[in-house]
Amino acid sequence: MLSELKKEVCAANRALETSGLVKLTWGNVSGIDRASGLWCIKPSGVSYAELTPDDMVVLDLEGNILEGRLRPSSDTKTHLHLYREFADIGGITHTHSPYATMFAQASRALPCYGTTHADHFFGTVPVARALTKAEINQDYEHHTGVAIVECFQKLKLKPLEMPAVLQAYHAPFTWGKSAGDSLNNSIALEMCAQMAVGSLQLNPSLGAIPAHILQKHHDRKHGPGAYYGQKKTPH
Amino acid sequence: MLSELKKEVCAANRALETSGLVKLTWGNVSGIDRASGLWCIKPSGVSYAELTPDDMVVLDLEGNILEGRLRPSSDTKTHLHLYREFADIGGITHTHSPYATMFAQASRALPCYGTTHADHFFGTVPVARALTKAEINQDYEHHTGVAIVECFQKLKLKPLEMPAVLQAYHAPFTWGKSAGDSLNNSIALEMCAQMAVGSLQLNPSLGAIPAHILQKHHDRKHGPGAYYGQKKTPH
Amino acid sequence: MLSELKKEVCAANRALETSGLVKLTWGNVSGIDRASGLWCIKPSGVSYAELTPDDMVVLDLEGNILEGRLRPSSDTKTHLHLYREFADIGGITHTHSPYATMFAQASRALPCYGTTHADHFFGTVPVARALTKAEINQDYEHHTGVAIVECFQKLKLKPLEMPAVLQAYHAPFTWGKSAGDSLNNSIALEMCAQMAVGSLQLNPSLGAIPAHILQKHHDRKHGPGAYYGQKKTPH
Amino acid sequence: MLSELKKEVCAANRALETSGLVKLTWGNVSGIDRASGLWCIKPSGVSYAELTPDDMVVLDLEGNILEGRLRPSSDTKTHLHLYREFADIGGITHTHSPYATMFAQASRALPCYGTTHADHFFGTVPVARALTKAEINQDYEHHTGVAIVECFQKLKLKPLEMPAVLQAYHAPFTWGKSAGDSLNNSIALEMCAQMAVGSLQLNPSLGAIPAHILQKHHDRKHGPGAYYGQKKTPH
Repeated sequence: MLSELKKEVCAANRALETSGLVKLTWGNVSGIDRASGLWCIKPSGVSYAELTPDDMVVLDLEGNILEGRLRPSSDTKTHLHLYREFADIGGITHTHSPYATMFAQASRALPCYGTTHADHFFGTVPVARALTKAEINQDYEHHTGVAIVECFQKLKLKPLEMPAVLQAYHAPFTWGKSAGDSLNNSIALEMCAQMAVGSLQLNPSLGAIPAHILQKHHDRKHGPGAYYGQKKTPH
Repeated sequence: MLSELKKEVCAANRALETSGLVKLTWGNVSGIDRASGLWCIKPSGVSYAELTPDDMVVLDLEGNILEGRLRPSSDTKTHLHLYREFADIGGITHTHSPYATMFAQASRALPCYGTTHADHFFGTVPVARALTKAEINQDYEHHTGVAIVECFQKLKLKPLEMPAVLQAYHAPFTWGKSAGDSLNNSIALEMCAQMAVGSLQLNPSLGAIPAHILQKHHDRKHGPGAYYGQKKTPH
Repeated sequence: MLSELKKEVCAANRALETSGLVKLTWGNVSGIDRASGLWCIKPSGVSYAELTPDDMVVLDLEGNILEGRLRPSSDTKTHLHLYREFADIGGITHTHSPYATMFAQASRALPCYGTTHADHFFGTVPVARALTKAEINQDYEHHTGVAIVECFQKLKLKPLEMPAVLQAYHAPFTWGKSAGDSLNNSIALEMCAQMAVGSLQLNPSLGAIPAHILQKHHDRKHGPGAYYGQKKTPH
Repeated sequence: MLSELKKEVCAANRALETSGLVKLTWGNVSGIDRASGLWCIKPSGVSYAELTPDDMVVLDLEGNILEGRLRPSSDTKTHLHLYREFADIGGITHTHSPYATMFAQASRALPCYGTTHADHFFGTVPVARALTKAEINQDYEHHTGVAIVECFQKLKLKPLEMPAVLQAYHAPFTWGKSAGDSLNNSIALEMCAQMAVGSLQLNPSLGAIPAHILQKHHDRKHGPGAYYGQKKTPH
C-alpha cells in the first residue's frame, strides 16, 4: 500500500536529521496520495536513522489507521486537519529547527527580508496563535491544526503561496506539493529565519523587501511563466 | 561487572563528541545500577573516540573505586553526591556545551520559552550558586553536588521533572532515568538554550510559556497518560 | 569543448554544498576561457551532488548556448554581464550564504574590520542598489549585472581588488581569477561577514582597520612583491 | 631530521581544518625541539588535506631554513620571535577562528567568564596592540611577535599560564608545551570566545569569574597537585 509514497516520506524523515534541522526525535514528515485520500506519517519517537518505509503509518482522511505496526507521530491530528483543510498540499513537515523556533517562541512573524525568502514564501510567514486551555484539554494536536487554518483564513493566505507557519510558543510547520517539497520549505524557512535574526541585528528597523522584487522572485519560480530549474524536474 | 551498563555509559560518552556537545575532553557521562548501588563513569581526560566499555571506572555509593585501570573523571564526587541525594535518577551527563554554558556563565536561569523546553524540563532550569572559597578549598567537586542539591531543595524541584541545572560560572549538569536519557537531556538543554538566546534577541521582554501549555507538553511525554513515542520503547 | 574548465567549474559548484555555503540549489559558479571567449555555468535547479562536468552549459559572450542538455542557471545573464564588463575576471560565484546575505538584506556594506578581510578584499565590500520595477520587468537578471557594474564604476573599484559585492535584498556575488578563486572569495566573504556581525556586537561603533594594515595585507598576498603561498601554485 | 616532531606538527596542522577552526589556508602550527633548537612549521598556502610530514619546513632559532622544498608560512617570523622570547613553549598555533577573531577585531580582551576558560587560560586573554606603519614597513611578521612579547612583559604574564593572545585587527595566537597542546588551546580559546559573546548578550555588564574559582580550576589542571587526566598522559 502506497509503497512509493512511503519511500519518499521515509527519506524525507531521515533527511530531517541529516540536514541538521532536527535533534533527537523532534520532527516528522508526512505525505498524501490525493487520488486515494490515503496518507502516511512517521511513527512517534522512533530514531530517524532506524526508519524504513514499512515503518510509516498509513491513515485515511478520517484519521483511521489502515496500516502500521507502530503508533503514528503524536502530531498526527495536526497533519490530518491540514490535509483536510488545505486541499492542494501533498506533504507536511514539522520541525523544531532552532532559528524558525526562535521566531515562534517570540510570537513574531517573519517578514520577507530578501530574495531567499521570496523564492519560497510569498510574503510574511505568519504566527498562529497559542491554544486556549479549553482547546488543549479537549484535543491539543487537532486544535493546533485548527489554529493554523484559522490564521490562514483570517489573513487570506493561500497554502501553496505561503507554505509555512510559526505556531506561537511551539515551532514551525511547512508544507508543499509533496513530502520532499515540504522538507525543502523547512530547510528554506530555517535559513531565512537565521538570516533574519542577523539582518535585524544589523538593522533593527529593517523593513520588508519591496513588493515588486517579492513578486518577481515568486513568479520566476512558481508563476505561470516560471523559468527556474529544468522543465521536466521542477522543484 | 556491570557489562551492559558500561556499554551504555561508554556509548553515551562517545556521543558527547559526535553530537557536537563537547570539545576536547570537556564532559562526562555516568550511569548507575540501583539494584546493586554500583555505578560507572568516564575516566578523566581520555579522548572520546578511544573509549571502550572496559575503560569505565566502577564505584560504589561510598565513592570507593571497585574496578578500573584509569582515574575516574575529575567530576566524580559531583556525580556521587547527586546519585546519593536524587534517588530516582539513573544517569548523569556533564558538558560545557556552549549555549547552556552561556546561561551558566551569566548566572541566568533558563525559563521555559516553548514546547521544545516543556517536553524535557518542567519549568525554569535553575542556576545553582557559585561555591565559596571555603567549599572550594575543602572539596570542590563534592560541594558542586551539594550546591545543586541545595538549589533543588530550596526551589522544591523534583529531579526527574527538572533534569537539569546550570552551575554559576561553570556549566550544565543533566540527568535522567538512564545514562542515555541524561545525554538526551543535555542535547535538549543545549538546543533550548540556543533558541532562548535568539528568542530573547527578538523579544527582550519575552515571558515564559503559559502554564497550561507547559503542563500539557510535560504530561503528554511524561505524565500518567503519556502518549508520545512507542509503548514498549518510551524515551 | 572546454573539458578542463568544465571540470573545474563542476568541482567548484559541488564545493558550494560541501563547504556549507549553500542549501538546496541556492548558488552557482561559472568560469570563462578568455582566449576563446567561451564560458560555462551550472544548470538551473540541479542538485550539487549529482553534477558532472558534462552537465555544465557552455555559452559565448553574446549569451548564446553552444552546448548543454540542460537549462543554464537562472542567474546566467548576471554572470554574462559581469564577464563582459569586468574583463580581467575568470570565474564568478553566487551564493545565499547566511552571514553575507544578512548584510545584503540589511543593505549594509561590509567594512574591512581585520586582516582576514584585508587578505581578500581591498576595503569595504559595497552594496549594489536594488533594481527598479522597470528593470525587473524588462530583464531582471541582466539588470542585476548592470547594477553591480554601475556600483563599481561609481565607487571606482577594480574588480580583482574588490572581488565581491552585496546586492541589496538579495545576496552576494564574488569573482576571481578563476572559478576556484571566486569560490574561495565566497568562503572568505562569508567568514568575514560572520566575524563582522560578532565584532559589531562587541563594539557597535567599531571602525575599519587602519589603512596601512589593509595595504600591507593586500600587498603581501596580491601586490607585486607578494610572498604568501608557494611561487608556482599561487591562489 | 625531527621526524617525530614533523609528524606531530603535520597532524596538528591538518586538525586545523578538520576541527573547523580554519577555512582555506588561514592558519598554521609549528613545534620546536628545545634540545636542538630546531623547529618546523607548515609551508605557506598549502591545503591542509594535502600536507605530509615531509612538507614541514625546518628552521633554526636564527630563522635559517635547514630543510624543506616549500616556502614556510608567511607568519614564520612571528613564530620565530615567540620561540626566542618564550623559552618554555613547545608549539604555536595561529588561526583566524571566527569568535576569537571577533574579539581581536574589536580590540577587546577576553575576560575569564567561566571554568571552561579557567581550565586553559589563567585570567583575561590580552590584546596585543596593532602595529605602527613603520613596523609594518620594516618587518611586519617579526613585529607582530614583538608586539605580543611586549604585551606579555607589560602585563607580567607567564606564557604557559596565559597561552593565548588576541592581536588587534588580526586574530589569535596560542601556544603550549607542544604543538598539539597549542592546538588544543586554540580550540579552547574559540569556544571560550563563543561562550563569552553569548554570555555578554545575556548580561552586558557581566564581570569575570571570582578569583578563587579561577585559581582552583587552574590548579586542578596545571598546578603542582593537579589531578585532572591520567598520570602518564596528562594534557
